[in-house]
Amino acid sequence: MTSEGARPGSRGVTKLSRKPVRGGDGARLTIRLDFGERGALGPGKIRLLEMIEETGSISAAGRAMAMSYRRAWILVDSLNTMYQAPVVETQHGGQRGGGARLTLLGKALVARYRAIEAGAEAAMRADIKAIERELA
Amino acid sequence: MTSEGARPGSRGVTKLSRKPVRGGDGARLTIRLDFGERGALGPGKIRLLEMIEETGSISAAGRAMAMSYRRAWILVDSLNTMYQAPVVETQHGGQRGGGARLTLLGKALVARYRAIEAGAEAAMRADIKAIERELA
Repeated sequence: MTSEGARPGSRGVTKLSRKPVRGGDGARLTIRLDFGERGALGPGKIRLLEMIEETGSISAAGRAMAMSYRRAWILVDSLNTMYQAPVVETQHGGQRGGGARLTLLGKALVARYRAIEAGAEAAMRADIKAIERELA
Repeated sequence: MTSEGARPGSRGVTKLSRKPVRGGDGARLTIRLDFGERGALGPGKIRLLEMIEETGSISAAGRAMAMSYRRAWILVDSLNTMYQAPVVETQHGGQRGGGARLTLLGKALVARYRAIEAGAEAAMRADIKAIERELA
């Protein structure tokens, strides 16, 4: 599987951010994007992609998220068919006995998702704080 | 691992999801607010509150969301203790044999949550569209 032709989009790939988005006294905003029949993108899939990039392995990423190997593979497969090009590429054999990493498209996807999350939090900070103030 | 042509299965369309926030060609953004030990607020609880307001009953709201009566009550109870004052108030007896409605705080909470969702979608529309363009 090759990532050739996978275009990250018009903007440059930014560094993967794993820091939770925080607002107010520690409220965390997470987002979910639903594309109808074309699929959905939420915190679980994005975190899995980040962990694949970090560990270089789908199974290690799954383990780190207390997710079965099978479940992790199913999610990766659904992500790879959801986009115009794969977001994860795997290497079979070799020194490490096979590994996985994000394609440029995969990195761009994660960066953009995190940017949406951070931008949404920043834009709506005042309202998030207002909800927080009413907590017990 | 590729399954070319495989599309993410279409999820069951939720009849009750009204007024979805849309971006791009129909992407829907939903948010979740996590307040750590103080609780969390996501689409399920907010929808339940909206249905309570609409039906005037916790059990009817739960039924409309295919949720058990017990589950609906547990969620309402957790919401009522999560905030400084109740968000749902119940009337026992009376002509309708007891009912439920949102308090002013409950109405404000729902409105604010939906405002955050809509504001987040509007603020990040360009990035959401960029992700959509890369879908298969």
